[in-house]
Amino acid sequence: MISHPFDTAVALQPQADGAFVGHTSVAYANMVGPFGGVTAAQALNAVLQHPQRLGDPISLTVNFAAALADGPFTVIARPARTNRSTQHWVIEMQQNGETVLTGTAFFGLRRETWGADEHTMPEVPAPSDVPRASGLARVEWVKRYEMRFAEGAIPAEWNGADLGISRTRLWLRDDPPRPLDFASLTALSDVFFPRIWRRRPLLVPIGTVSMTVYYHADAALLQATDSGYLLGQSQAQAFCNGYFDQTAQLWNESGNLLVIPFLLHK
Amino acid sequence: MISHPFDTAVALQPQADGAFVGHTSVAYANMVGPFGGVTAAQALNAVLQHPQRLGDPISLTVNFAAALADGPFTVIARPARTNRSTQHWVIEMQQNGETVLTGTAFFGLRRETWGADEHTMPEVPAPSDVPRASGLARVEWVKRYEMRFAEGAIPAEWNGADLGISRTRLWLRDDPPRPLDFASLTALSDVFFPRIWRRRPLLVPIGTVSMTVYYHADAALLQATDSGYLLGQSQAQAFCNGYFDQTAQLWNESGNLLVIPFLLHK
Repeated sequence: MISHPFDTAVALQPQADGAFVGHTSVAYANMVGPFGGVTAAQALNAVLQHPQRLGDPISLTVNFAAALADGPFTVIARPARTNRSTQHWVIEMQQNGETVLTGTAFFGLRRETWGADEHTMPEVPAPSDVPRASGLARVEWVKRYEMRFAEGAIPAEWNGADLGISRTRLWLRDDPPRPLDFASLTALSDVFFPRIWRRRPLLVPIGTVSMTVYYHADAALLQATDSGYLLGQSQAQAFCNGYFDQTAQLWNESGNLLVIPFLLHK
Repeated sequence: MISHPFDTAVALQPQADGAFVGHTSVAYANMVGPFGGVTAAQALNAVLQHPQRLGDPISLTVNFAAALADGPFTVIARPARTNRSTQHWVIEMQQNGETVLTGTAFFGLRRETWGADEHTMPEVPAPSDVPRASGLARVEWVKRYEMRFAEGAIPAEWNGADLGISRTRLWLRDDPPRPLDFASLTALSDVFFPRIWRRRPLLVPIGTVSMTVYYHADAALLQATDSGYLLGQSQAQAFCNGYFDQTAQLWNESGNLLVIPFLLHK
């Protein structure tokens, strides 16, 4: 049995001092350093695999402090506070003794209660009716995802015109398909290309500064979603003096809102 | 000259070991513990006052690990990584040796560049045409803000009916008025009451789990806004098994988007 490239990418080796060691993945390489979604998943994985972990992820924030160099890294996940049904984590990723990522995570035991998705899934054609994007293979990690853009694909022409809107809607899933879990959902939260490229098509170099993910899916909903398509929607709210944000949503094909990612780019 | 209650509330005393000591504020007391917005501002203030600080806040995440007890607290702000024009901070707040807040902040030097507010300010009546909310004085901190609800005020009737929408729009500012700065803008980002009270009016106890703020305002824009009204808009995207989120925006009266706060409540 050959393991999925994502499982290989997020694998961590526990160390005697409680830290974990991982390795950047050639399969998820970006223009400079690795795809940030996988880096975020690796950071989360240090909590998911930690022996003191309580419950499932409810929120995660990671800040990209420096581009990771290809090679090994250390992740330190510290349970700063454990309450009866919730847990607060502080996460740090290091290379050669220098901090390359800071983060915090909140885990908790969920309880069945009233629920509603107020942000409902927009109407778009079914995945089979939207052509698969091609010509995106400029960087390696993009080949690890199937992307079918219903709106706001990667620009065909980089002319710098202000299009007035930065919204993208696409069907997406791992390629090859892989049953969804919290780590892969975290990586999928970062699949959207930077909103400035959509709003004002200029292929300028962009770095992700910070990503926050609110998980509205529990383990049962992930299992029900399995390896099906997710509908991703992403839009910027403001571009200001070198920084711009992105607010996104990922629904499964049944219309359940699984996760709300927020990103800040530079 | 009498100092503004907000300045008194966020004041911190530097310690010999680099940490800061602050004190919860009676003026900003909540039902249990202090108003979270002021706690977040105190956490940010430890970075703002830190001798190694570079630039202005671009993003902040704070996680509320436990209700603060009335009394003193310690804030430790550590510059985990300083780059040429950016800086990553790890923040922790403690009481009696226990962690009550974890957080990260990203600071940076901004550069003049192309900008646009894609999320434009909704049309609402002018502040003077919206009556000031009264009867909100159930808790002390609410008296420190002037609030004029254009839509989605605190429910008059707590009947638990599902109203189908959780959106609130209000004009707000410090009371007494105070020139806006990064600390007060952070506190104002948490002024919105929990979205579940709006969507389904039941006065259930709610706690803030996490707050992330993206600052799209620089010092010049804060100065131009001065002590004017801000228009706040807030809406939940999903309510799921005991947790629900909130995505918000704060514009100044000229329609500049100053800050995008995201909150997760329990």
